[in-house]
Amino acid sequence: MEMSVAAAAAVHVLVERHETLATAESLTGGLVAATIVEIPGVSAVFRGGLVVYATELKGTLAGVPEKLLDERGPVDADVAAALAAGVRERCGADWGVATTGVAGPEPQDGKPVGLVYVAVAGPSGTEVRELRLTGNREAIRTESVTAVLQLLTDALRTSPAPV
Amino acid sequence: MEMSVAAAAAVHVLVERHETLATAESLTGGLVAATIVEIPGVSAVFRGGLVVYATELKGTLAGVPEKLLDERGPVDADVAAALAAGVRERCGADWGVATTGVAGPEPQDGKPVGLVYVAVAGPSGTEVRELRLTGNREAIRTESVTAVLQLLTDALRTSPAPV
Repeated sequence: MEMSVAAAAAVHVLVERHETLATAESLTGGLVAATIVEIPGVSAVFRGGLVVYATELKGTLAGVPEKLLDERGPVDADVAAALAAGVRERCGADWGVATTGVAGPEPQDGKPVGLVYVAVAGPSGTEVRELRLTGNREAIRTESVTAVLQLLTDALRTSPAPV
Repeated sequence: MEMSVAAAAAVHVLVERHETLATAESLTGGLVAATIVEIPGVSAVFRGGLVVYATELKGTLAGVPEKLLDERGPVDADVAAALAAGVRERCGADWGVATTGVAGPEPQDGKPVGLVYVAVAGPSGTEVRELRLTGNREAIRTESVTAVLQLLTDALRTSPAPV
């Protein structure tokens, strides 16, 4: 699925539910947000987000515990979950999504190229998916964007509509 | 000039000077950051950034004074300057860049479609450029990305190299 199709699907459900979204991005570096803002009608649901490319900013901007970052490094399932929950809270959104992983071309902190975690945080909790992607940096980034938007849409569909 | 060419030029100068960059984006919604992270070698110079799509986040995330936002609205030269200075400080970067403007299709807060302010904040101050762009949302966004990266490159070239 193309990034923009996945973004349109997620934005459509958010508009229907009158709920808002925020993004925290490491390896995708702003591409999730940039894909979302291309969808017509997005200003009613998109709050904004954080690009936490440097590891330190995952703590200072998104509130990921420093101990977790020290122990696991930035490419980790619990770090992804903490990024999604952190940006949801700091941007005052109903839903937060996050990406962290290794775009390559070199492995990072002992983690292989293509290992990516995408996460969603909503009113009733947080969910993380581990991805093992192949291809060049651009392919890994675009696949990560599509995957996190699909995770969001799935979470929205299984979450009770707000009252 | 293409966005990626403008990004490569700016990253090249930052790498040479061993200086770092952070981004604060309103109408471009993450596209400046996403364009920058495509450039090889960028992790040495790019810290991260803020996507401040909702007006309120320009204050809470980037530190733009609430009084300024109330009086002028989000599409304003001084707001652009405050975004660039704010993200520079909050991301601990040597340089901060910012975009704010009206991508359309409708005017916003009395400001016409295509009115965009791009700003750069560095060690010796802040600079803002006003743009009057034409075309659809995508054209206005991509022109804004190129313009803010060119402003950064110009500011780097006229700034004394760090000692």
